[in-house]
Amino acid sequence: MRQAAVYPGTFDPITNGHLDIIERGADIFKTLTVAVARNDRKRPLIPFEERIAMIEKSTSHLPNVKVEGFSNLLIDYLAKKEIKHVIRGLRAISDFEYELQLALMNRQLSPEVETLFLMPRQEYIFLSSNIVREIGQMRGDYRKFVPEAVFDDIDTFFTRPPV
Amino acid sequence: MRQAAVYPGTFDPITNGHLDIIERGADIFKTLTVAVARNDRKRPLIPFEERIAMIEKSTSHLPNVKVEGFSNLLIDYLAKKEIKHVIRGLRAISDFEYELQLALMNRQLSPEVETLFLMPRQEYIFLSSNIVREIGQMRGDYRKFVPEAVFDDIDTFFTRPPV
Amino acid sequence: MRQAAVYPGTFDPITNGHLDIIERGADIFKTLTVAVARNDRKRPLIPFEERIAMIEKSTSHLPNVKVEGFSNLLIDYLAKKEIKHVIRGLRAISDFEYELQLALMNRQLSPEVETLFLMPRQEYIFLSSNIVREIGQMRGDYRKFVPEAVFDDIDTFFTRPPV
Amino acid sequence: MRQAAVYPGTFDPITNGHLDIIERGADIFKTLTVAVARNDRKRPLIPFEERIAMIEKSTSHLPNVKVEGFSNLLIDYLAKKEIKHVIRGLRAISDFEYELQLALMNRQLSPEVETLFLMPRQEYIFLSSNIVREIGQMRGDYRKFVPEAVFDDIDTFFTRPPV
Amino acid sequence: MRQAAVYPGTFDPITNGHLDIIERGADIFKTLTVAVARNDRKRPLIPFEERIAMIEKSTSHLPNVKVEGFSNLLIDYLAKKEIKHVIRGLRAISDFEYELQLALMNRQLSPEVETLFLMPRQEYIFLSSNIVREIGQMRGDYRKFVPEAVFDDIDTFFTRPPV
Amino acid sequence: MRQAAVYPGTFDPITNGHLDIIERGADIFKTLTVAVARNDRKRPLIPFEERIAMIEKSTSHLPNVKVEGFSNLLIDYLAKKEIKHVIRGLRAISDFEYELQLALMNRQLSPEVETLFLMPRQEYIFLSSNIVREIGQMRGDYRKFVPEAVFDDIDTFFTRPPV
Repeated sequence: MRQAAVYPGTFDPITNGHLDIIERGADIFKTLTVAVARNDRKRPLIPFEERIAMIEKSTSHLPNVKVEGFSNLLIDYLAKKEIKHVIRGLRAISDFEYELQLALMNRQLSPEVETLFLMPRQEYIFLSSNIVREIGQMRGDYRKFVPEAVFDDIDTFFTRPPV
Repeated sequence: MRQAAVYPGTFDPITNGHLDIIERGADIFKTLTVAVARNDRKRPLIPFEERIAMIEKSTSHLPNVKVEGFSNLLIDYLAKKEIKHVIRGLRAISDFEYELQLALMNRQLSPEVETLFLMPRQEYIFLSSNIVREIGQMRGDYRKFVPEAVFDDIDTFFTRPPV
Repeated sequence: MRQAAVYPGTFDPITNGHLDIIERGADIFKTLTVAVARNDRKRPLIPFEERIAMIEKSTSHLPNVKVEGFSNLLIDYLAKKEIKHVIRGLRAISDFEYELQLALMNRQLSPEVETLFLMPRQEYIFLSSNIVREIGQMRGDYRKFVPEAVFDDIDTFFTRPPV
Repeated sequence: MRQAAVYPGTFDPITNGHLDIIERGADIFKTLTVAVARNDRKRPLIPFEERIAMIEKSTSHLPNVKVEGFSNLLIDYLAKKEIKHVIRGLRAISDFEYELQLALMNRQLSPEVETLFLMPRQEYIFLSSNIVREIGQMRGDYRKFVPEAVFDDIDTFFTRPPV
Repeated sequence: MRQAAVYPGTFDPITNGHLDIIERGADIFKTLTVAVARNDRKRPLIPFEERIAMIEKSTSHLPNVKVEGFSNLLIDYLAKKEIKHVIRGLRAISDFEYELQLALMNRQLSPEVETLFLMPRQEYIFLSSNIVREIGQMRGDYRKFVPEAVFDDIDTFFTRPPV
Repeated sequence: MRQAAVYPGTFDPITNGHLDIIERGADIFKTLTVAVARNDRKRPLIPFEERIAMIEKSTSHLPNVKVEGFSNLLIDYLAKKEIKHVIRGLRAISDFEYELQLALMNRQLSPEVETLFLMPRQEYIFLSSNIVREIGQMRGDYRKFVPEAVFDDIDTFFTRPPV
């Protein structure tokens, strides 16, 4: 199925940078599946199911986007779905080499997988889920960095009394 | 026209790394136009028309690929053709930042232009036209770095008696 | 207050590279406040109060330097102090992109904040608190990497019997 | 003279990124001298005197900024002026290492010289004089990349008939 | 003893990239000692003694290679062994700066230590123990990334029931 | 001949950084040949024969170092000499990727060639022939950057009246 692509990630939480890449991908491919990695071993802040729900809420205006979770290797998920195109955002800062390493590994494991890198809007080139979590945990104002539709949902994860 | 993309470059000369990217692009988009920049100001080794001819010869097995030249800014060429997708190869080594700078500039000049970065095969990550020219000018063996169909054509540019 | 600047960090522990940047900053600005991030979430080796005390001891020769702690976001601390200039050290190695990401984030959260990057002495370009902790934890000799005045204080954190 | 700084460059031509750094520097230091390198050996597009005049025109709203030319090494110019602070812009993309190399060289040649790096606005992180010249030479629209006051002056250098 | 060198690392587990560097080092130096860092603080997946055993098994075809463990700082181990040459692999991706930082630190701590960087085969430039562990923990197929002789040994660490 | 190595370069002119690498290489290998690339196409400042003479003068204290010129591809020179080890300096700044690209190309052209990267003294990490030429051409003081024995020889290339 040539016109399908997958956008994988942990999305802990989804940021405006992610949403920007989703919109670009949805404009290129007939269908785009946002694939949320369970990643329990990395102890995400936001539970798997809620990360999926937040992306669904944030992308409800995009009819050709759907959201799914996956638990193991991306290439196994792709094989099961019979999709070979993967999109990834390429921020100017700090993750080019990691992205390349991932793409090279995936290609060795599964040569038909093709990774396309897209560039988010310039104002998001520094943005990451990690930065949102850091600001949130210090009770700073990260509202402009996440989709408006899910700000309140995300914020509940930062308002718990300190441990 | 959503399914068309352009792969711009100077191609002085076309390398196997370029050809690899062309094949990947042709697999993603309905039509792929290889757009050869005239670039006279940079004094290319191989004349404009011959660079175009070499790419045509190298891509004759790809029915949805065509080759054209352009003389001025890429974004003006894209506007005239009404194509908004651009593909670029992303070598692990040395041109990530330049590519990003170009893509950011193009987006500022023409916000609807979308650049997709593709990764060539791992054995080509160091390859560039510049390296082929350097080896050729020192009479080294660059045969494995360029499409077989045009090796002899390229080689005529290196066999002239030294100045 | 135009002539004031803040030098923020975790300083776990202060190194000679930090001290070098403090001296350079104190030479440019009328007053320089070293702002120690509490950062309990990252489980620093040295407790907050002792990190502050070590910097005070190391900078007692610099009359226009004072040391303070802060608990939340740097930009909130800056707003409360009404200081807009931040200085950061820029090591040749490994943290340029992280520094830039931080500075871009701070500027988006608080546009008036201005970050100035200073370069430490060449012999400190590889030095970090992390390296000092690694050497100390392996009982190596890190004496030349930290201010003489606080070496004994720092060393108490490495002489505990192994867990 | 502690409150003076120099902002050196070739400014061939001045861009909005340069102007942004000049405004930031003028806000930090009591006086800021924009020092234009003659650099005849690199065959600038715009003659030395006109580059100086363009910067004067672009900075006429900044009372504590003046513009001067210099012909040889920056450190000799600094010594003559008895200024030790140098500011440089730090674009996210592509010149960090070159800037650091320059600063390290200057410090070895003249240890008292202190280079401060400032970050331009995010929308200028890809911008350089080189990019402006490339767009201009291809008759593209670079108007948004240079100070409005000197756009017409710059444009005369691109409208000459092709050689 | 001029012809001896040490190849230090954690080897958690050994990969084909490590083995490639070992073979290159063994071809340059009369004897090569693979020095396995105990590194308990970083909680390796594979116990110290088993990491040593796996390397011995993987290098049994190399008569001038031996394997040892060390517990503290590399430079202290080198001093005790009276060896001054260290070899390290230099992957194209992601660890150049870390390697340089380590080498600069070692040189400051012990000026006679000389680090030589070798480049693994191109197909291993993305490979790391970390990637092998990630694939293994997700039950993916990492067989082509580790020495055949120890694949089964390594795999026992991934087949335990999930915690 | 296993104990021989080649240190190739243009050496236009030799710097203290080069000399430092030569001394390190001469300490590792039984014989080290400094191989000077003629490189007429790049229009070196200093003629081929004089570059060779300057290195001979600078290395006269090193009995196992000899100096030779070569005109074409390094790998052809290596094949003729039956030497497979190449050493290269690895400055912290700015040439890692170029060096890697070169080494990968050489390995593809001639798989038995093995490149070893050595790190110069920390104070030379920014130093290059290019920087020496720039300072010299602006009549600055580059004396501390080149071997004392050849400073006067080099300086004659900068004292010609300006063109």
